[in-house]
Amino acid sequence: MPARGRLIGLGVGPGDPELITLKALRLLRESPVVAYFVAKGKKGNAFGIIEDHLVPQQTLMPLVYPVTTEVLPAPMSYEQVISDFYDAASVDVAAHLDAGRDVAVICEGDPFFYGSYMYLHDRLAERYEAQVIPGVCSMLGGASVLGAPLVYRNQSLSVLSGVLPHEDLKRRLADADAAVIMKLGRNFPKVRLVLEELGLAERALYVERATMANQKIVPLDQVDPASSPYFSLIIVPGERWQG
Amino acid sequence: MPARGRLIGLGVGPGDPELITLKALRLLRESPVVAYFVAKGKKGNAFGIIEDHLVPQQTLMPLVYPVTTEVLPAPMSYEQVISDFYDAASVDVAAHLDAGRDVAVICEGDPFFYGSYMYLHDRLAERYEAQVIPGVCSMLGGASVLGAPLVYRNQSLSVLSGVLPHEDLKRRLADADAAVIMKLGRNFPKVRLVLEELGLAERALYVERATMANQKIVPLDQVDPASSPYFSLIIVPGERWQG
Repeated sequence: MPARGRLIGLGVGPGDPELITLKALRLLRESPVVAYFVAKGKKGNAFGIIEDHLVPQQTLMPLVYPVTTEVLPAPMSYEQVISDFYDAASVDVAAHLDAGRDVAVICEGDPFFYGSYMYLHDRLAERYEAQVIPGVCSMLGGASVLGAPLVYRNQSLSVLSGVLPHEDLKRRLADADAAVIMKLGRNFPKVRLVLEELGLAERALYVERATMANQKIVPLDQVDPASSPYFSLIIVPGERWQG
Repeated sequence: MPARGRLIGLGVGPGDPELITLKALRLLRESPVVAYFVAKGKKGNAFGIIEDHLVPQQTLMPLVYPVTTEVLPAPMSYEQVISDFYDAASVDVAAHLDAGRDVAVICEGDPFFYGSYMYLHDRLAERYEAQVIPGVCSMLGGASVLGAPLVYRNQSLSVLSGVLPHEDLKRRLADADAAVIMKLGRNFPKVRLVLEELGLAERALYVERATMANQKIVPLDQVDPASSPYFSLIIVPGERWQG
């Protein structure tokens, strides 16, 4: 019986292919199997970042999400469908590991920062050796292109999901020294309204697809809510500390 | 008059020299001047990460902190001393920029995530072209070596400073879905007490110098408070979402 393969959660950074780490690149090239999550009919952001670095003879393993929206006809629930999907993906990945092949699961940004890799990790890391290579996450990519220092000295940073209900988002934002709001998309109008109510709209900065080739920086009051993609984020930088 | 040089805030990652990005490495090698913040008599973590990548003819520019503690004899204040230091460092950096030389300011982790680079950026970015290269920050390095997925789905992540007073820290932690507590050092006993009071001590994970050669992972209840370094952190991962 061959030695078991390693599960590798491989952060490839926020979008700019040059923002991958040396370590991620080395392990990517050394892995016989390269797996990646992807929406039906899409190439996938993570795959786009690394495709020029692939070497011959690698097995590509797209893990295709069965759904892309959270609204499904009853009695199907998003939670159940996606849980079944992660179960099945884990079985497929485990088959390679059992055969002694390392599997690199590439992740946009960082694997443990809202990454789908976490669901494979939770299912497999107790049975197989797992290694996680951290990556530059989207919020740091965003701050860099916005030229916005995020947090000074002893300030607290709140990373919030745009999916949060209005009042919850407002309470958390009101208590934050600095904040990053992710997962905008259709939540954008609500998020902008909350920022306006708190008097934070002028301090807030908006970017779509930070560090990617089609990156777009738009003043918050000029964002078209109908076209704000899921991969956009808002940063409310901490108050400048003069040092 | 030569064209002015560029100010480059260059994130070099959390400690493992392989966790630098391709972009940071390229710009590091292309920069005629490499500046770095460092404590008196020390080599500096950021410098240690990149020293093997330096090329001949580069000018090294250590920016030596005048103080390392916040307690100073009156009438000196830490704020004033450190502010004067950043002013002077900016003048020195600007001299290179005026002479047409790019200056890469290397930063452990990410430049905009609690990095000293921010104080140069705030002083110089309005007058000079500035470019920031994001890096893998310490909390993501920490999560990776702890094998701890940080935040799931729509959970909020609170990044907190151990310097916060007991009650403030407690209130913020109680409201967090997931948390990272940085800047421990002499604040460790207070932070551990707060975690115990909130019933979070068993979920909390502790690491010193994550991804560095002398990294140390210790169960929270076995940490010696007298020896906890400033570069340690605690992660309270979000509750697992089964997917």
